[in-house]
Amino acid sequence: MINDKLPYIYYGGDYNPDQWPEEIWQEDMRLFKLAGINIVTLPVFSWAKLQPSEHTYDFEWLDKIIATVAAEGIFLCLATSTAAQPAWMSRLYPEVLPVDIDGRKRTHGSRVNFCPSSPVYRMFSQRLAVKMAERYGHHPSLLVWHIGNEYAPHCYCDTCASAFRTWLQNKYGTLEVVNRVWNMSFWSHTVYEWEEIVPPTNLNGNNKCFQGIALDYKRFMSDAILECYQGEYDKIKEITPDIKITSNIWGLFNGLDLKKWADHMDVVSWDSYPQMNEPMSNVAMRHDYMRGLKDGQPFMLMEQTPSQQNWQPYNSLKRPGVMRLWSYQAIAHGADTVMFFQLRRSVGACEKYHGALIAHAGHEHTRVFKECTQLGMELQVLGDTLLDSVTESKVALLFDIDTWNAVEMTSGPNVDLDYLKQAQKYYKAFYDLNVSVDVISPLSDFSKYELIIAPVMYMLKPGVSDRLKSFVKQGGTMVTSFFSGIVNENDLVTLGGYPGELRDLLGIWVEEIDSLQPEMTNKIVIDSAFGELYGEYECGLLCDLLHLEGAEALGVYGRDFYAGMPAITRNTFGQGEAYYVATDPEQRFLEQLSQTICERLNLATTHQAPEGVEIRSRQKDDKTYTFVLNHNAYETAILLNAGSYKDLLSHRVYERTLVLEPYGVAILEVCK
Amino acid sequence: MINDKLPYIYYGGDYNPDQWPEEIWQEDMRLFKLAGINIVTLPVFSWAKLQPSEHTYDFEWLDKIIATVAAEGIFLCLATSTAAQPAWMSRLYPEVLPVDIDGRKRTHGSRVNFCPSSPVYRMFSQRLAVKMAERYGHHPSLLVWHIGNEYAPHCYCDTCASAFRTWLQNKYGTLEVVNRVWNMSFWSHTVYEWEEIVPPTNLNGNNKCFQGIALDYKRFMSDAILECYQGEYDKIKEITPDIKITSNIWGLFNGLDLKKWADHMDVVSWDSYPQMNEPMSNVAMRHDYMRGLKDGQPFMLMEQTPSQQNWQPYNSLKRPGVMRLWSYQAIAHGADTVMFFQLRRSVGACEKYHGALIAHAGHEHTRVFKECTQLGMELQVLGDTLLDSVTESKVALLFDIDTWNAVEMTSGPNVDLDYLKQAQKYYKAFYDLNVSVDVISPLSDFSKYELIIAPVMYMLKPGVSDRLKSFVKQGGTMVTSFFSGIVNENDLVTLGGYPGELRDLLGIWVEEIDSLQPEMTNKIVIDSAFGELYGEYECGLLCDLLHLEGAEALGVYGRDFYAGMPAITRNTFGQGEAYYVATDPEQRFLEQLSQTICERLNLATTHQAPEGVEIRSRQKDDKTYTFVLNHNAYETAILLNAGSYKDLLSHRVYERTLVLEPYGVAILEVCK
Amino acid sequence: MINDKLPYIYYGGDYNPDQWPEEIWQEDMRLFKLAGINIVTLPVFSWAKLQPSEHTYDFEWLDKIIATVAAEGIFLCLATSTAAQPAWMSRLYPEVLPVDIDGRKRTHGSRVNFCPSSPVYRMFSQRLAVKMAERYGHHPSLLVWHIGNEYAPHCYCDTCASAFRTWLQNKYGTLEVVNRVWNMSFWSHTVYEWEEIVPPTNLNGNNKCFQGIALDYKRFMSDAILECYQGEYDKIKEITPDIKITSNIWGLFNGLDLKKWADHMDVVSWDSYPQMNEPMSNVAMRHDYMRGLKDGQPFMLMEQTPSQQNWQPYNSLKRPGVMRLWSYQAIAHGADTVMFFQLRRSVGACEKYHGALIAHAGHEHTRVFKECTQLGMELQVLGDTLLDSVTESKVALLFDIDTWNAVEMTSGPNVDLDYLKQAQKYYKAFYDLNVSVDVISPLSDFSKYELIIAPVMYMLKPGVSDRLKSFVKQGGTMVTSFFSGIVNENDLVTLGGYPGELRDLLGIWVEEIDSLQPEMTNKIVIDSAFGELYGEYECGLLCDLLHLEGAEALGVYGRDFYAGMPAITRNTFGQGEAYYVATDPEQRFLEQLSQTICERLNLATTHQAPEGVEIRSRQKDDKTYTFVLNHNAYETAILLNAGSYKDLLSHRVYERTLVLEPYGVAILEVCK
Repeated sequence: MINDKLPYIYYGGDYNPDQWPEEIWQEDMRLFKLAGINIVTLPVFSWAKLQPSEHTYDFEWLDKIIATVAAEGIFLCLATSTAAQPAWMSRLYPEVLPVDIDGRKRTHGSRVNFCPSSPVYRMFSQRLAVKMAERYGHHPSLLVWHIGNEYAPHCYCDTCASAFRTWLQNKYGTLEVVNRVWNMSFWSHTVYEWEEIVPPTNLNGNNKCFQGIALDYKRFMSDAILECYQGEYDKIKEITPDIKITSNIWGLFNGLDLKKWADHMDVVSWDSYPQMNEPMSNVAMRHDYMRGLKDGQPFMLMEQTPSQQNWQPYNSLKRPGVMRLWSYQAIAHGADTVMFFQLRRSVGACEKYHGALIAHAGHEHTRVFKECTQLGMELQVLGDTLLDSVTESKVALLFDIDTWNAVEMTSGPNVDLDYLKQAQKYYKAFYDLNVSVDVISPLSDFSKYELIIAPVMYMLKPGVSDRLKSFVKQGGTMVTSFFSGIVNENDLVTLGGYPGELRDLLGIWVEEIDSLQPEMTNKIVIDSAFGELYGEYECGLLCDLLHLEGAEALGVYGRDFYAGMPAITRNTFGQGEAYYVATDPEQRFLEQLSQTICERLNLATTHQAPEGVEIRSRQKDDKTYTFVLNHNAYETAILLNAGSYKDLLSHRVYERTLVLEPYGVAILEVCK
Repeated sequence: MINDKLPYIYYGGDYNPDQWPEEIWQEDMRLFKLAGINIVTLPVFSWAKLQPSEHTYDFEWLDKIIATVAAEGIFLCLATSTAAQPAWMSRLYPEVLPVDIDGRKRTHGSRVNFCPSSPVYRMFSQRLAVKMAERYGHHPSLLVWHIGNEYAPHCYCDTCASAFRTWLQNKYGTLEVVNRVWNMSFWSHTVYEWEEIVPPTNLNGNNKCFQGIALDYKRFMSDAILECYQGEYDKIKEITPDIKITSNIWGLFNGLDLKKWADHMDVVSWDSYPQMNEPMSNVAMRHDYMRGLKDGQPFMLMEQTPSQQNWQPYNSLKRPGVMRLWSYQAIAHGADTVMFFQLRRSVGACEKYHGALIAHAGHEHTRVFKECTQLGMELQVLGDTLLDSVTESKVALLFDIDTWNAVEMTSGPNVDLDYLKQAQKYYKAFYDLNVSVDVISPLSDFSKYELIIAPVMYMLKPGVSDRLKSFVKQGGTMVTSFFSGIVNENDLVTLGGYPGELRDLLGIWVEEIDSLQPEMTNKIVIDSAFGELYGEYECGLLCDLLHLEGAEALGVYGRDFYAGMPAITRNTFGQGEAYYVATDPEQRFLEQLSQTICERLNLATTHQAPEGVEIRSRQKDDKTYTFVLNHNAYETAILLNAGSYKDLLSHRVYERTLVLEPYGVAILEVCK
Repeated sequence: MINDKLPYIYYGGDYNPDQWPEEIWQEDMRLFKLAGINIVTLPVFSWAKLQPSEHTYDFEWLDKIIATVAAEGIFLCLATSTAAQPAWMSRLYPEVLPVDIDGRKRTHGSRVNFCPSSPVYRMFSQRLAVKMAERYGHHPSLLVWHIGNEYAPHCYCDTCASAFRTWLQNKYGTLEVVNRVWNMSFWSHTVYEWEEIVPPTNLNGNNKCFQGIALDYKRFMSDAILECYQGEYDKIKEITPDIKITSNIWGLFNGLDLKKWADHMDVVSWDSYPQMNEPMSNVAMRHDYMRGLKDGQPFMLMEQTPSQQNWQPYNSLKRPGVMRLWSYQAIAHGADTVMFFQLRRSVGACEKYHGALIAHAGHEHTRVFKECTQLGMELQVLGDTLLDSVTESKVALLFDIDTWNAVEMTSGPNVDLDYLKQAQKYYKAFYDLNVSVDVISPLSDFSKYELIIAPVMYMLKPGVSDRLKSFVKQGGTMVTSFFSGIVNENDLVTLGGYPGELRDLLGIWVEEIDSLQPEMTNKIVIDSAFGELYGEYECGLLCDLLHLEGAEALGVYGRDFYAGMPAITRNTFGQGEAYYVATDPEQRFLEQLSQTICERLNLATTHQAPEGVEIRSRQKDDKTYTFVLNHNAYETAILLNAGSYKDLLSHRVYERTLVLEPYGVAILEVCK
């Protein structure tokens, strides 16, 4: 529960009054109230203003702003403002500047442009956090702390190299172990002194060369950056133990171990910037991933744009209704806040063409402002109804950042293999059925699920295969795919035959993995219908040549020298079943496979919705709130299950049919 | 008048006898005379020969060459030879070597490879210029000085960083102003010491990040390079006050503030290297731009290739007649010289496959030599007829290097937005009508024009909007387009609503700017014919969503949620009219718009020419010389206006019809 | 004869037991014997294990491995293990780390990552080679030495710069000569001190700028790297004068002067990694090139993959039979060994997905192992039958690394001009006729050939034109093409008219070279049939505009302003004929040209084979072994010449017709 002080869905976003003269502030307040804003995030990038020099701090202007905001009854998400160090720091302490993967020492500018291992950066950033906490930590309007901003870039400087060696000593103890787990006898890489270990960069080809080193460096870097966050966290927590702390994740990316990061956050928050033409299933999956980071706990939508973006190649406007639709989609997937970057469009520098509540025109008479206002009013009416409600899914999709990195670093078999895209394909198959999916770590609790989807489970960390076997043995169903069970957490191959530790669970042995040239395809042939699956399907990318060891073949390859070999198998294991998809099939195959499995498991679908309509539910106090989201640009009719339903937004009651306007939304509650 | 000493169109070009043994020189002279060469440019790249070491100079070989050339009655364009410093200088004074935008210190080699802020480079280059001026400045064959060569590359070294800070101090006075005009409170960039300002490079992401910094750095760099030029200029001017001085501009590019540079040249000269398949309108526009740099004064075509180039990906031969055709095109647009790079094809290094008057075969029995000779003979016959004649245009196209840079640096809304391409599209619409267009700066004199075209007037420098309003108020017509009036000279947005300072002039308010994905289009619908404009037209890239504030809509959008909103407007302002094209239309739209406006303004077109025939005139002493240029690879007939015309080239008289051979040219004078 | 100790085709490959625990070794031995392995190459990358620190060596583990292998009767290819220096060396002596072409000092890691000029690297590597030779040089199982591994990368550090200057002093004596042969008066590059010469890198644009410098730097670099090899070679030779020494060439690439390298090898060895969809003619050509490096002497196939690769974008499996087919193809072209990388698939790092005899599954029950075993058994049966047999070709294709580099560095006329591709096109024309071609240097002995093919003979080194004239004068036939005879060995143009020194031999003068835009084509028109040639053929890329000076035109251009000019010519010169193909024709043209010339020269073709069947012979002791290789994925019938033939593989006798299974092979010997 993040919303105890403010029992509403937080509605507001990044506010940068320090970029504006004071006379604008009062006008901002008027417009915020008009739009129903109840929270502002600040000061995200004001370190240089807060600390004009090494020994000088200036909080007066911030005092004034906070007073202004609070006076209007608007609450605060307080940022520690440490994402961009002041220029004086880079000049006086050049060590704070990072070295990039090409070995280039960076110069001052931009943001998140510091070495995460730098003691100077850490000292100054924690000092500022302490000052912020001491000064504002007990302010009645303070709701949540926001540390840094979109942590991400990696550094390869000597300070980091040295810290990496210490990190390795802590992890592995001796060089003997390091040499073994990185397979350093390959290419004469055996090291005898810790100092002989150097970061993997474009200057030694190590990123695609020694996956063991590169993976550990990525993990170290995630940890080093996490220590920057954690350093501030600990100091603040001491001063304000009751205020929740977060940092905004900039999306589903593989630069940080997001799962580990989430363990150090009181609440997950993230920034959602879909591309205009991106499949909505991808957006939904990202929300589900963020919700999964803390095992289903509601998260904060920390940033989205009210209208357009600036940093994509083509920054289209959000069509009328889309901002509202996507806001409710976030809530449907577990968000308890709807927050924008940014509240007022800046006048200069690179984000001046990023959308905002208040346009450069400066007034409320714009389409965007009106749409924001409508949403603000609706959220006020919703009050605390939805707060802390949860999502109940019977299906989990396993997704793991380390596996993603390992697949990306692999030299062979196929450059087009994209771990995220594979996950998205499987997710989409269930999304299109409106079956709720939790996106979780392979180390999360499986007990509440009936079905686990785990495409390209390339890397198996310790314990994962046992957990999966136990899950299936007890009656669970599992679906995995080609390129699974291949390596351990150090990217060392599990010897004895693919898919390694999963071999008995899946009842197969994969002898070879064919990698198809881009112009090649194969096909899956299913002669004897298995549920919805029947006939021929295109496939490609990789094709496992496998032998049955207990499993049965549901379909076989239709072409090439391995025509007739199994392409999809099912294995009974204890009380459950494990499916293996040996190649990368067309989406239709996955649709029919997911439908078949859902039918077999009686995973009840929901109201009957045509294409483009997403349906998701949140539960609370025995009540179910069902979000019906029309992603179509046209009016769409949904056939409702028996019963009558009240729409929390329109306050109308529906039976049998719900007709939604283009990009329309309803939140249905069963009428008792 | 640059041609007083030599009352002919200068005909010749770059001559590098120092690359050849002396026995070749006499043969060169024979061939030059044969081809009608009357000027040679030298020594463009001979610094290492002229100054073998820090304290030694050697002019003997140059004395001999100049004597040889002068003895043949050939005149001189004397280069100061400072475009490539000798290797000893780079070795003894490494500070002369520049640092590139990736922070890499360059090593010796190539050309124009020096730091423009380097005191050592400046001292040595000026010293050489003085020696050249003292030794040859009063030589009777000297016509013009040529400083450096194709100045362009930028430097990011510490010397430049320091000079940049000084430049900023001179421009802005205080850091308070700098912080304000660069909007430095964004992303915590506020600076408190001058030393905290660092050049924008790929090491701090500043080029696409802080447009204010990046724009000023480009301006500073243009100024720093200009100081190199100016240093030599001043020294030479002292010694030879009556000799014109120039430097060859390498084309229409945005690395230098060409308008400012032109102010420091006695005559503009430039190097024209069209690609084989480039629209001829682009070539014409570049000539017009160069003519506009000094307000219509004739310019020098300093370089073109007699046959092929070497540095393009595909270096096709100029087809028979094309070299002659393009030479006359340059003259038609204001050139008073026709000069080549190069007179003799070099034997080694990177330009050995660049065309030349004298091929590697070494004799006159080549197609290229013969074509050059034909042209040489014609130019001799033309004598001084065309010299100093001027172009009279009623239409001006505004083009501004700073705006170009600002649009390129913009983060959002659409990466495909290309300022130059937009200007070229509008220019082409008038070119295809054979309406003469001056390409001028927004700060040039507007008084002689009836129509001003200013597409994508993104940046408005101080005074420009007032000048435009005054122009229209007094009866002028103006056409501008989307993404205009957005920012001031520091790339700060003009608040209050787009198009900012142009809002009343255009009578519109642009609420939003939609950026289309590459696969998207919209259309302009004109229900009620406006001149030639009627029906539907494709459009794309950016679409303004605008409201009329006094203007009338001539056409509206045909698709998407803003269908029906104005897509082209016209506003009456004082005695004049201002048109606004709110999106990027297909070329046909611009053709019909330009035709409509020309008809409304009675901008008389000329003889009736089919597609591919360009007609341009120059005026002198009440005479009009009309160039008819057949860019078609086939014979083409032109319907002449009433009257009879003498062709200065064929000496024939034409009435009613002029038939030109493929790539043919006529220069018509009305028979009295 | 490399196989005297082991009178079989060597069969085995790279073995890395140091990556595995000892318990695996015995299993390896069992599997090796099973598969018929008779040689292992080791220890290719074990320097760090062999020399754990500057003053410590450890050979015990290697002793044990060698004993294990030898005990099984398996022979040794002993590597000096110097391709990847230990990390301690890079740390203690940073000078061993190279600087790349972007001026970046590399860090430790990867392989072949050392400065070839480094005295430290050379000292340590030779010291290791000596120790290896002393310890194992007289081991009875030792067959051949293998120095380094796939030498290739270039360095641009100060040590190399200094060594380059010394190399230049040795080659040219004085700076006057250097200035002349590099045409340094161009762009003011004249140097006066040796120190003024700097390596051509991306920091001075010299690679595409001063071809003379860049070519010599490449030659120097090849020599510097060769000195690394030669240093080890000399030390080893002293100790084991009778053991053959080689280093594995990583393919037909232009980073080293392979011909010069081959002169320093006792036997050529190379690594063959065809792409799945590559034309088989390219593979054949590479084999022929390797055979040609030592004038027809059999070579070692040092590496190929048993199944798939890992470093290509798409690493498809070799289809069943293909590994065997390609092994015999190598033998057919002159290989006396069939060796793999690698015998056991590694468990970690970048090559873990590279194919191996022993898969990760670890046993013999795989398709790949079985195919390897089949081949191993066949090779045992073949015994010494084919050893040291030779190839007799009447046709030679000239191919020169320097020319390749020079064409690549050329600025103009056409970026798509690819020297290797041109050679491959001509080679393919003869390959498709099953006419054996030697690929040789322009400085090789021409006396045994009737036909010399030399496309794009851009660079003529001293003596080459005389050798060609003498060859043709005595009755030989020669075919060359556009862009020939242009420059000398320093990339200085031969003045007086193209094709320079070949002008009289070809009886033509090329006045101009048109470079076609990618969308342009021309055509060759042959009105009067010349053998198979008749009608129209597409052509493009470059089109010479040439004049006949004694030659006759066999065909002319069909388009553009040079329609009607000769496009293919033939000149009688002494007793022979010289053909000139003035443009880049479609493949059909080259097919018909080669067929025509073969018919004219009575170059007997062999059995009648349909498309996709390659036929090559090796001769020994008056016997001819004819390899029939079915590259088709389907069964194919070959019509045999009169007589009966025994197949050495199936031991069957064939008459009239030989039917081969998909990817099938026969080695036919005439039954007497």
